[in-house]
Amino acid sequence: MDIKVGLAAIEEASKTLSNWGRWGKDDQIGTLNIVTPEDVVEAAKLIRRGKAFSLGIPLDRDGPQTGLFGGRFNPIHQMLATGTDAIAGQQDWNRVRYADDTLMLCVQGATHWDALGHIFYQTKAYNGHDARLIDSRGLSVLGIEHSRDRMNGRGVLLDIARHRGIDWLADGEAISNDELDACAKAQGVEIRRADFVIIRTGQMERCMAEGEWGGYAGGDAPGVRFENCYWCHDKNIAAICTDTWGVEVRPNETTEANQPWHWVVIPAMGLCMGEIFHLKELAEDCAKDGTYEFFFCGPPLVITGATGSPINPQAIK
Amino acid sequence: MDIKVGLAAIEEASKTLSNWGRWGKDDQIGTLNIVTPEDVVEAAKLIRRGKAFSLGIPLDRDGPQTGLFGGRFNPIHQMLATGTDAIAGQQDWNRVRYADDTLMLCVQGATHWDALGHIFYQTKAYNGHDARLIDSRGLSVLGIEHSRDRMNGRGVLLDIARHRGIDWLADGEAISNDELDACAKAQGVEIRRADFVIIRTGQMERCMAEGEWGGYAGGDAPGVRFENCYWCHDKNIAAICTDTWGVEVRPNETTEANQPWHWVVIPAMGLCMGEIFHLKELAEDCAKDGTYEFFFCGPPLVITGATGSPINPQAIK
Amino acid sequence: MDIKVGLAAIEEASKTLSNWGRWGKDDQIGTLNIVTPEDVVEAAKLIRRGKAFSLGIPLDRDGPQTGLFGGRFNPIHQMLATGTDAIAGQQDWNRVRYADDTLMLCVQGATHWDALGHIFYQTKAYNGHDARLIDSRGLSVLGIEHSRDRMNGRGVLLDIARHRGIDWLADGEAISNDELDACAKAQGVEIRRADFVIIRTGQMERCMAEGEWGGYAGGDAPGVRFENCYWCHDKNIAAICTDTWGVEVRPNETTEANQPWHWVVIPAMGLCMGEIFHLKELAEDCAKDGTYEFFFCGPPLVITGATGSPINPQAIK
Amino acid sequence: MDIKVGLAAIEEASKTLSNWGRWGKDDQIGTLNIVTPEDVVEAAKLIRRGKAFSLGIPLDRDGPQTGLFGGRFNPIHQMLATGTDAIAGQQDWNRVRYADDTLMLCVQGATHWDALGHIFYQTKAYNGHDARLIDSRGLSVLGIEHSRDRMNGRGVLLDIARHRGIDWLADGEAISNDELDACAKAQGVEIRRADFVIIRTGQMERCMAEGEWGGYAGGDAPGVRFENCYWCHDKNIAAICTDTWGVEVRPNETTEANQPWHWVVIPAMGLCMGEIFHLKELAEDCAKDGTYEFFFCGPPLVITGATGSPINPQAIK
Repeated sequence: MDIKVGLAAIEEASKTLSNWGRWGKDDQIGTLNIVTPEDVVEAAKLIRRGKAFSLGIPLDRDGPQTGLFGGRFNPIHQMLATGTDAIAGQQDWNRVRYADDTLMLCVQGATHWDALGHIFYQTKAYNGHDARLIDSRGLSVLGIEHSRDRMNGRGVLLDIARHRGIDWLADGEAISNDELDACAKAQGVEIRRADFVIIRTGQMERCMAEGEWGGYAGGDAPGVRFENCYWCHDKNIAAICTDTWGVEVRPNETTEANQPWHWVVIPAMGLCMGEIFHLKELAEDCAKDGTYEFFFCGPPLVITGATGSPINPQAIK
Repeated sequence: MDIKVGLAAIEEASKTLSNWGRWGKDDQIGTLNIVTPEDVVEAAKLIRRGKAFSLGIPLDRDGPQTGLFGGRFNPIHQMLATGTDAIAGQQDWNRVRYADDTLMLCVQGATHWDALGHIFYQTKAYNGHDARLIDSRGLSVLGIEHSRDRMNGRGVLLDIARHRGIDWLADGEAISNDELDACAKAQGVEIRRADFVIIRTGQMERCMAEGEWGGYAGGDAPGVRFENCYWCHDKNIAAICTDTWGVEVRPNETTEANQPWHWVVIPAMGLCMGEIFHLKELAEDCAKDGTYEFFFCGPPLVITGATGSPINPQAIK
Repeated sequence: MDIKVGLAAIEEASKTLSNWGRWGKDDQIGTLNIVTPEDVVEAAKLIRRGKAFSLGIPLDRDGPQTGLFGGRFNPIHQMLATGTDAIAGQQDWNRVRYADDTLMLCVQGATHWDALGHIFYQTKAYNGHDARLIDSRGLSVLGIEHSRDRMNGRGVLLDIARHRGIDWLADGEAISNDELDACAKAQGVEIRRADFVIIRTGQMERCMAEGEWGGYAGGDAPGVRFENCYWCHDKNIAAICTDTWGVEVRPNETTEANQPWHWVVIPAMGLCMGEIFHLKELAEDCAKDGTYEFFFCGPPLVITGATGSPINPQAIK
Repeated sequence: MDIKVGLAAIEEASKTLSNWGRWGKDDQIGTLNIVTPEDVVEAAKLIRRGKAFSLGIPLDRDGPQTGLFGGRFNPIHQMLATGTDAIAGQQDWNRVRYADDTLMLCVQGATHWDALGHIFYQTKAYNGHDARLIDSRGLSVLGIEHSRDRMNGRGVLLDIARHRGIDWLADGEAISNDELDACAKAQGVEIRRADFVIIRTGQMERCMAEGEWGGYAGGDAPGVRFENCYWCHDKNIAAICTDTWGVEVRPNETTEANQPWHWVVIPAMGLCMGEIFHLKELAEDCAKDGTYEFFFCGPPLVITGATGSPINPQAIK
């Protein structure tokens, strides 16, 4: 496609691709509605070897956050009770020896889903919900809890880096719709209605190889072009996921908007989106057995009124 | 079985049922080793209708915690950016309108897995690991991260409350091994090697019906007898889960130990355990279609060195 | 005074008592401007016995919060390193044995100052600052940090409960301006310009005696009448503090506004306000020695952009 | 003094300088016992101009922590309610427009006191208290709460950087006892029994001038020599404070112990210690008026069982 990315293109795409009302005026889950029970049954048949891949990165202080994007920080894990307490006899009054702990994290700070209340266009969230309903008490609409039993279906990996024959795409390198199609064709896999499409750029593996996250969270990245919103709509997919922090290419294709693709796919389309997916082992396995489709199960935590959820999605072949 | 529950019985069961070394001296995941890839493939065939049930309770301030058990508290969800900020124009410098948020929670405060480093017997954790290795910096052994891709398999619901013909078991009511077997038989389902067995007492539904959690977290509860550790071992199951906070009956069958069944099943057996499961809709569906088996997928978050993980397991039929 | 408390009375008081512009259009600290260096020098002369009283309540899980008022919770104190770790040898690699810890708390959840950005009237905060400037990133105006070196001066205790000859005022009992004057007179102390006036109702001591906080935080309480805003203005005091959570009487004198006195004293007057002060020992000492004035030093933490600060004010006689 | 710093010197100093039992076997506050009411009365006479200096650094994300020393992080300030919510009408159901917030921080992450339970020598804390009593539930002995009303007295600034005629000491530069005495003499101020001695190295100002904290928290620093423990004991001071993270020079004078001076002054002496003090304005004023003594009031928060407290101490001249 030949799009001059900017506010006008965002407005046009928002109108053209709008799913407002498509699944009723009260809908809270957008493109996840596309997945039917039959799709789940069919997807289950992709479990042929019984091998699961965990797509979540570790939640700890070594995560990618550096304070960008409004102060996101890495997970803070703290103990409430320890084996050293137990050994010291400090728990014996309670007649049980145990460890216990807490976790504080940014919901979108590591591998996660975006909820549909994460991004607004002007004064509105997806399906016309008023952005005012998303205040300091949380999301009274479009929170991640609505997707609690809907993150199951057919997963497909599009390994763009391998398709290009490289270890990883450089920051700023864009992925076109044509390249997605060509990659699928080369991999011998078809993108179908209701798929959970997972795109591998290799950026995370580059960071791991270099031993530092650099601008991984909030900075530059390889990713899809703005035109990808049309592709997702045409393919009628359930979700799109990547091994980057924000799916789309950065620097963005315009300076008129920050994350222009997001402006469209969440508020207008209600597209389910997963970010910071760990794809190394899955991608190696797909390259090895030539099978790029699998059963996908990525349940979000049921966090009431949250803009997303930390997750550890399973790709099961 | 006829067991006089107490420290002596714990010691005997710990010796008799020990899985130390069964899966190698470095093993970190215990009974999850029982599940083979073939088991996962077979379990996938149970996805016949494409209907998923979410077994996680909401993570919010209305959770069951009241400060018992060393100060556990309910999840604290806070915003980093809101729709009201967006509407007020406070984000326009950033050229994107969005909401973002954080979550602080007790790892075991709502629906969760216990990791094998959660409970010690004397100075040792499962597989002989030294409890000293579980200190204020977290679990350097037996953390939940080791199970990141192993929580998939055949799930079976044993609906004890329905089997008894009641809405819920009262606090203090115990479930024997014989009753588990009788329930399975009555339900027409077989407990097999490698199963994720889920027991419904109805206690959570009682709390919800009464509009208050009461002693739900840390207090009295219906649950399995101490003898259940033998049943789990004999059946060679992968995991046991319940709709209570601690699986076993409370008040406990002895005053010599707090949670005597835990003393055995985690440190000696390395049994995977899930607690505070929300079972209402799943149980209603099983009663309706008469099918008590399903594909189970309950991935933990990959929290480095944690005693467990908040989860939203999926039971898919 | 004879005021029919309600929105009209709030509007009138807001106009009559406004301090907007009194200390310049950029002022951030309101009535703290009243305190001059000479006032501090004079106040220091009240340190005659060298006896200090700590007015802060303990910061721990036993605090007054119960989730009211938007989800306030009690302080959560967690360890990062412990003596049990040290004893177990887990710190020896670092060649130092130590304990370390964290604290999470609601800024206004225990003994605290309100910052002037805490309450708005319509769309404005004190001195005409736009309420929009107080967003999810914090207070870009009127934060507590501006008062970092200004919380020093003459303190005066008005012990209303003792003045009435009772242990504590009941919830809902109101304190009039006349009673404040009569109490001061009976105590032989004069309320002067620039004073930090501290009012004792005894409510906190009632809660401690009864062993439960009940509605202490966010519920009913004894306190000053709405008319008190005029008294504070006439006396030209620097600050007003109490042993209740919200200074003013509850149930409020109107249903048209929640905390009507707050609507005036913070946004219109810029009055510095302290709440949840622990006054038992100070009050006993004042009753004993007949001296109700003292040096007051209550420095806030320098929390950038906060609506207040937890404090442990010192009353030094 | 000519000391070969190492484990032997630590052991010798621990014996020679021990204050165990000096103030009773149950004592929890160590050298703060030295301050008498008369000392406070005398110190109050130093308030001659009514000018207060705030010695606390801002508590925000721009603080010095970088994860060293067991995972310390900078303060996390989050809103519970905002002006943008108010403007959007989201609070009108509650009939009050307000902002509210929370703070999560490391107790010792910015300007703070160390409590006496912060450091151990072998298996003991100050006064012979067992280190086992400091576990994951907090400090059941020697917590900061015991000092709630004792942090008041005569403050003295020793401006070592100005004394040397430089802006700041470089990392690794050590301050001897003789230099402290020479500095006091040159400044025309006497170090007396019961003083709160505050040493300025200028390190913090260097970091601010350079726009980065670098190794400020946990890394190299200028500071006192190990021999300083003898000086503090001889002078019989109440407390020692600096504008560095750990008072003593780093790299340390030995590799046998990390922070060898700490090993002695806290467990053996029970010396009160303040760190990360902001001294720029106070030091400039002292240089200007030639007066290096003042009233010092640095109340800790009453955090039950904490290893210290964030503070904003006041130096009042």
